[in-house]
Amino acid sequence: MRLSRYFLPVLKQNPSEAQIASHRLMLRAGMLRQEAAGIYAWLPLGHRVLKKVEQIVREEMDRAGAIELLMPTLQLADLWRESGRYDDYGAEMLRITDRHDREMLYGPTNEEMITEIFRAYVHSYKDLPKNLYHIQWKFRDEQRPRFGVMRGREFLMKDAYSFDLTEAAGRASYNQMFVAYLRCFSRMGLKAIPMKAESGPIGGDLSHEFIVLAQTGESAVFLDKRMLDLPVPGEDVDYGADLTPILDEWTHLYAATEDVHDAERYERETPEAERLTARGIEVGQTFFFGDKYSRPMKANVQGPDGVDTAVQMGSYGVGVSRLVGAIIEASHDDAGIIWPDPMAPFGVGIVNLRPGDPEVDEACERAYAALTAAGKEPLLDDTAERPGGKFATMDLIGLPWQLIIGPRGLADGVVEIKRRATGDRQTLPLAAAVRTICE
Amino acid sequence: MRLSRYFLPVLKQNPSEAQIASHRLMLRAGMLRQEAAGIYAWLPLGHRVLKKVEQIVREEMDRAGAIELLMPTLQLADLWRESGRYDDYGAEMLRITDRHDREMLYGPTNEEMITEIFRAYVHSYKDLPKNLYHIQWKFRDEQRPRFGVMRGREFLMKDAYSFDLTEAAGRASYNQMFVAYLRCFSRMGLKAIPMKAESGPIGGDLSHEFIVLAQTGESAVFLDKRMLDLPVPGEDVDYGADLTPILDEWTHLYAATEDVHDAERYERETPEAERLTARGIEVGQTFFFGDKYSRPMKANVQGPDGVDTAVQMGSYGVGVSRLVGAIIEASHDDAGIIWPDPMAPFGVGIVNLRPGDPEVDEACERAYAALTAAGKEPLLDDTAERPGGKFATMDLIGLPWQLIIGPRGLADGVVEIKRRATGDRQTLPLAAAVRTICE
Repeated sequence: MRLSRYFLPVLKQNPSEAQIASHRLMLRAGMLRQEAAGIYAWLPLGHRVLKKVEQIVREEMDRAGAIELLMPTLQLADLWRESGRYDDYGAEMLRITDRHDREMLYGPTNEEMITEIFRAYVHSYKDLPKNLYHIQWKFRDEQRPRFGVMRGREFLMKDAYSFDLTEAAGRASYNQMFVAYLRCFSRMGLKAIPMKAESGPIGGDLSHEFIVLAQTGESAVFLDKRMLDLPVPGEDVDYGADLTPILDEWTHLYAATEDVHDAERYERETPEAERLTARGIEVGQTFFFGDKYSRPMKANVQGPDGVDTAVQMGSYGVGVSRLVGAIIEASHDDAGIIWPDPMAPFGVGIVNLRPGDPEVDEACERAYAALTAAGKEPLLDDTAERPGGKFATMDLIGLPWQLIIGPRGLADGVVEIKRRATGDRQTLPLAAAVRTICE
Repeated sequence: MRLSRYFLPVLKQNPSEAQIASHRLMLRAGMLRQEAAGIYAWLPLGHRVLKKVEQIVREEMDRAGAIELLMPTLQLADLWRESGRYDDYGAEMLRITDRHDREMLYGPTNEEMITEIFRAYVHSYKDLPKNLYHIQWKFRDEQRPRFGVMRGREFLMKDAYSFDLTEAAGRASYNQMFVAYLRCFSRMGLKAIPMKAESGPIGGDLSHEFIVLAQTGESAVFLDKRMLDLPVPGEDVDYGADLTPILDEWTHLYAATEDVHDAERYERETPEAERLTARGIEVGQTFFFGDKYSRPMKANVQGPDGVDTAVQMGSYGVGVSRLVGAIIEASHDDAGIIWPDPMAPFGVGIVNLRPGDPEVDEACERAYAALTAAGKEPLLDDTAERPGGKFATMDLIGLPWQLIIGPRGLADGVVEIKRRATGDRQTLPLAAAVRTICE
């Protein structure tokens, strides 16, 4: 992409409404624009990152055997009356009346609807297990939306729903999603720690929150620091095998958010030298809730014994839009964002120090073509802005590499590359620079 | 994908509520489920096709130089008061009040919001032209939703918005989108004919509807049949060049929907032998409306002469979810859907005639692996259903190829392949069958 044709409205000033780093940096880097309280337009740079998060989540869901579908944003109120949650949900549910005075709502979550879909078609244990997921915009009418995409009202979620005949099989499905989540967040360059959690309004007695550690995180967390070194399952993990050993490994050490922290247990179970108090951001949560929805909604399957029983369910959420903010909270400095390589909206920024100079232009085009061919998705700053401004923008938008090409270097046969994360710079011939970036 | 693990709830009976072929076939083929009037869940098979439509649209927008972003589904009523459309829009606009009694709406289109985004950041002709697009769910509270995804209430649209300094430049942007639309629909295997249209509530005096010809189309169309043979620009089309000749070629022959049909002109301009009366489905519409939104909303840019002028705009919609229905209307028979190759949810269906037979299972697995490696996205029917049911399902879901593997054929060293569109069958060795499908 050529910056002169792109739409990247960076802000020079810190926006006064942004209280946290990710919100401030997303506004400044031209990723986001607020359209109403807690409702945002994703400008092109932000949209590219959002799509990358979505795609990693999708790939890991598919790998774990979940099947993608898509439920609508609006739902009938009557569906929520079946589970009894319509009245429970309170003011955070955005209630809507259509032109025929039908009561509807903008879905804050989809347990009811997926149960309705399941019960319409699946009646036999022979069709189990099933795990259905979707990635869709949801709405929660927060009393006081703030912190940008970290606590917006309209937000993008992945949620998966598992269906099994028995509780044991249901727990095996739960384990699959648990492992998929470890992989998912690790691929995004995040340290995400599963922590035992309250299940709240979703229900059930088995639930984990996946918490990304970030200095600017929303809540305090207490953990055994050996959790930071646990191995994340590789892409060859066998989802058909018993995953209990992986679950045990990732849940036997102490890790808790401040909401459920038990100081006494922490001190008893965790040697003082291994204790780590940090801050964290929730990016996903898994729930196993058995027949909480299937029983009132009569989602029954016939077992091998001919007897109908309510299906055993779990649900598994990932905050897709929230993750964009979480990644920034976990990875930024005073100059701007530092994208982990897989999440970067562009892999490398090429800075043309003198557009209009035929030699510089030509070298930039050559680099652009080579990096594009190598799949590095370069962003070429071919604008008339001064070098200082170009450098500041590149640091702000946080692409992993910068390739700086100017007339003085070219006269000596060299260009400069800079690694955003470390600030390390190298001066070398153009072809070698491209090779280094592609390595 | 293995059918035993997939979620493909086909219906044996024709659903009584479906009045048109695409609606009936989408319900029967397990692509769609109604969740409320005009509001659907896209089941896995339908979702795969929806994603393919979306991806082709995205690729052609990107190729034409448009930049993707994403605007939210909900909008502030005040934004629509600025353009004067809030009161004009009537009962089709779904109006919503949030917990703080703010007036909002579920966006039926986005001219106001994109104008608001543009004016916030762009102030100079130097930043023009710009073309911004998004692919997002929209809502139109139809009085009487029907015909499945052809006239739903919650629907997926691509809309692009162009911004230019002068009317001439604006018309050049219009031409780019016109050409991109020709390419887009052609890639989907559709004959889409641009027809001069009324601009209706969007405004402006230059507008074309893109109409797909289908026997079961929603409205009568009258055209010069030589339009069917016009060449569609290739992927090497130069969007930087003057595209007027392509536009002239595609607009100089008569083509009109019944709404604007002028029988006298038709007979005057079109030799009798070239006249074709057919039925069609609208799948996209392009509008050039100049400063209709930019003037009241004060989206001004400074020209080279230092004078501020309202930016010249166009908007360009494609009905992404509607296209899934339109493709089916244009391509089906009594047995089911016939997907054009690029739109098929899976490229080939492998029918295992005797699951459990080691030789048949092994041959199916071999074919599955080879076809997967070749990127053909096979769907392997490994279920216990009887052959007759399997054949009916394959015809119904309309994959371009069927590969039928059974014990009798294998004893003779052969399998059968069937081309869904023609019904042509061939018996040949497995390796040759795989090669034929991959050709």
